[in-house]
Amino acid sequence: MNRTFVSQLAEGSGREIAVRGWIQRFRELSRTSFIILEDCTGLVQCVAPTEALHDLHLKPDDTIEIRGRVRAEPRSRASFEIDIDQVIPLNRAGDMLPFNSGSDISGVSQEIVLDYRPLSLRTESVRDIFRVQASILKYFREFLDRNYFTEIVTSKIVAGGTEGGTNLFAINYFDRVAYLAQSPQFYKEYGVAGLERVYEAGHVYRAEPHATSRHLTEYYSLDLEMGFIDGPEDVIQLERELLTYIFNEINTRHADILARRGLSPLPSMLGVPTWEFDDCLERLRSAFGRADLADDLDPQGERELCVLAERENGIPAVFVIGYPLRSRPFYTRPRGDSGAASFDLLFRGLEITTGGERLHNRESLERALIGRGLAPEAFETHLRMFDLGMPPHGGLAIGLERLTMQILGLTNVREATMYPRDRHRLTP
Amino acid sequence: MNRTFVSQLAEGSGREIAVRGWIQRFRELSRTSFIILEDCTGLVQCVAPTEALHDLHLKPDDTIEIRGRVRAEPRSRASFEIDIDQVIPLNRAGDMLPFNSGSDISGVSQEIVLDYRPLSLRTESVRDIFRVQASILKYFREFLDRNYFTEIVTSKIVAGGTEGGTNLFAINYFDRVAYLAQSPQFYKEYGVAGLERVYEAGHVYRAEPHATSRHLTEYYSLDLEMGFIDGPEDVIQLERELLTYIFNEINTRHADILARRGLSPLPSMLGVPTWEFDDCLERLRSAFGRADLADDLDPQGERELCVLAERENGIPAVFVIGYPLRSRPFYTRPRGDSGAASFDLLFRGLEITTGGERLHNRESLERALIGRGLAPEAFETHLRMFDLGMPPHGGLAIGLERLTMQILGLTNVREATMYPRDRHRLTP
Repeated sequence: MNRTFVSQLAEGSGREIAVRGWIQRFRELSRTSFIILEDCTGLVQCVAPTEALHDLHLKPDDTIEIRGRVRAEPRSRASFEIDIDQVIPLNRAGDMLPFNSGSDISGVSQEIVLDYRPLSLRTESVRDIFRVQASILKYFREFLDRNYFTEIVTSKIVAGGTEGGTNLFAINYFDRVAYLAQSPQFYKEYGVAGLERVYEAGHVYRAEPHATSRHLTEYYSLDLEMGFIDGPEDVIQLERELLTYIFNEINTRHADILARRGLSPLPSMLGVPTWEFDDCLERLRSAFGRADLADDLDPQGERELCVLAERENGIPAVFVIGYPLRSRPFYTRPRGDSGAASFDLLFRGLEITTGGERLHNRESLERALIGRGLAPEAFETHLRMFDLGMPPHGGLAIGLERLTMQILGLTNVREATMYPRDRHRLTP
Repeated sequence: MNRTFVSQLAEGSGREIAVRGWIQRFRELSRTSFIILEDCTGLVQCVAPTEALHDLHLKPDDTIEIRGRVRAEPRSRASFEIDIDQVIPLNRAGDMLPFNSGSDISGVSQEIVLDYRPLSLRTESVRDIFRVQASILKYFREFLDRNYFTEIVTSKIVAGGTEGGTNLFAINYFDRVAYLAQSPQFYKEYGVAGLERVYEAGHVYRAEPHATSRHLTEYYSLDLEMGFIDGPEDVIQLERELLTYIFNEINTRHADILARRGLSPLPSMLGVPTWEFDDCLERLRSAFGRADLADDLDPQGERELCVLAERENGIPAVFVIGYPLRSRPFYTRPRGDSGAASFDLLFRGLEITTGGERLHNRESLERALIGRGLAPEAFETHLRMFDLGMPPHGGLAIGLERLTMQILGLTNVREATMYPRDRHRLTP
């Protein structure tokens, strides 16, 4: 008998069908037993006389096939129930699981949740996180496809770093040393030279020795780069529209998930303001008495700025532009006396994007390298690409895990990473 | 003045507009000059009196802004032309490029095409390859999203190999050794345990010392895995439908690209047959006198089988099932006496997919490991996941670059890889 998905039960109404899935809950009363069966499309309650199931010793998380008859049941979540004719165990779960798919795992330690990731994915609260994450990916790509961007796939094994060689993981590459890419920055700039508008969603690597709640050694970067811009404001405006598009889709498609977590719909980002870096320092001084910041913001400053932004605009988000040039990579376009034409987006207290306009001609790149004590000769393979007709351009990178975390109000980026990597964690 | 994209010229008809892009061709006649300008949406011819442009010394691949007036011109590809008021150079191309974006690069060596990848991307013949590749990705995901699969993102830094430890790249991971993932195999099986149907498109790594026309050290794998299958035939049927979906979209959306390359529309894959491995050896013996094959097919055998498949069914493609179990990884489900419930898809003479049903309970996995001289204790983190309620499952992996290559009739997988990596190539 062909297997029917739970979401397709309407088509099987009144007929004999077979469903397959996990036992999410099993309730054995004196005369009747109830199995809540779950597959990738939903949950359905299945009913049988207790004595008919007794010898099977069913328990939560066993995988089974149920053959039975579909009966309309308007009061149930699936709108149907199944009267069981037969239960066929497919593969049993172990007897000593640390929790079950139907458990409330809010009290389970993060280590256990990660060590038992397949099982935690089967709980509603964790599955919800990764459903939202998959939607972020989908609507990120959809928005960009509709705006003339081309998806590219670029190498993560590189001969050197994009930012001068710190925090790189070294690979034994035959008789040489290679490195894991920290960013697709150079490749997406080449992509602009070739295709004008490109994006890539892929892994990047930082040999980050600190295991904080915001840092991983491997994360997934939503990168885009676009040519023929007038300035970093064009990139900022694109991000406003991009995030608004993604947020609208999440509000529509995952209203149930937001509701389960007690979250309001995500805001439109179209009105998120752009504040100058120097102005941000001034605001932090006057509102919070902060006098310790000079070259960069710290996590506390990011949270405080979002508080101020929410007071002014109702949305705890702000683009900060004009960071000191010396704190930005060599390829950053200068702005004003000592500022950078680059920006961060702070959202709900955390930096989730870095972006900006880049230098686009060879001479200015050579000057910038020399100004940082780097030898242009070492970057010749890279610099050559700027002779090929490189337009003015800029772009941005959004950390997928951080964005997921901020959308859902999680407190540790590991919750939004299926298999997180840090100094201490390499498995599973 | 806001920039107008070439594809939006209809909206600017009769008005003063600004377009930005590359000079794809520049023709200077005695009285009139013609610029073919290209942006990410198309090409448009722009016209000016020769003397008005002369002092700008324009040349192909310079990036420029053109201000002018849009005029309908039904005979042109864009349906419009632009009468130039002003040309503003944005960034000049170098004087000594090895070829230009308007060049026919069929005579340019592969090394030069790769070394100048941004410029080669700007030629029609190369850009076409990566447009098709982006569409493969898009429609792979779209088909799976519509069939209850969830996209997952899994780590590429792993503690060990999935297949016993050969051809692994080692990473210096703080005070330990880690490895680059050869496959997301284990993670997608965990994904089945959590979400039932999952897919991931991402990089995988093989320390492959041979630089053949079909092998790379880093490639992009289109991976999927599905639970509650009855056998490998379910996975094969899904791939028939998946590829047919992708091919139909390419036929519709890239008819121009196929036509430029003299290619017929891609076939429906629904009728692609499944042949037993032993039967394949017999066919090769009888049709081509091959008597040298035993445990596996070789490249010549793959080509010959596709010839036979085309003779029988009109499509040069065949699923080969039942390879000798000893030539397949330990997690492969056995089939019959000494065969494997796994398959390859050969398409136009090349293996583009490996897939099959996997073992799904701990005991059989332990036996399989021991049978290959591997210690189950070393795989305990992995084996533990099979106690969590693992359904019967299977899946497949398609090499993105190989699929692109076979769709477009390319002869080297490097043509379908934006930045290929092999033993000798680490840049750009």
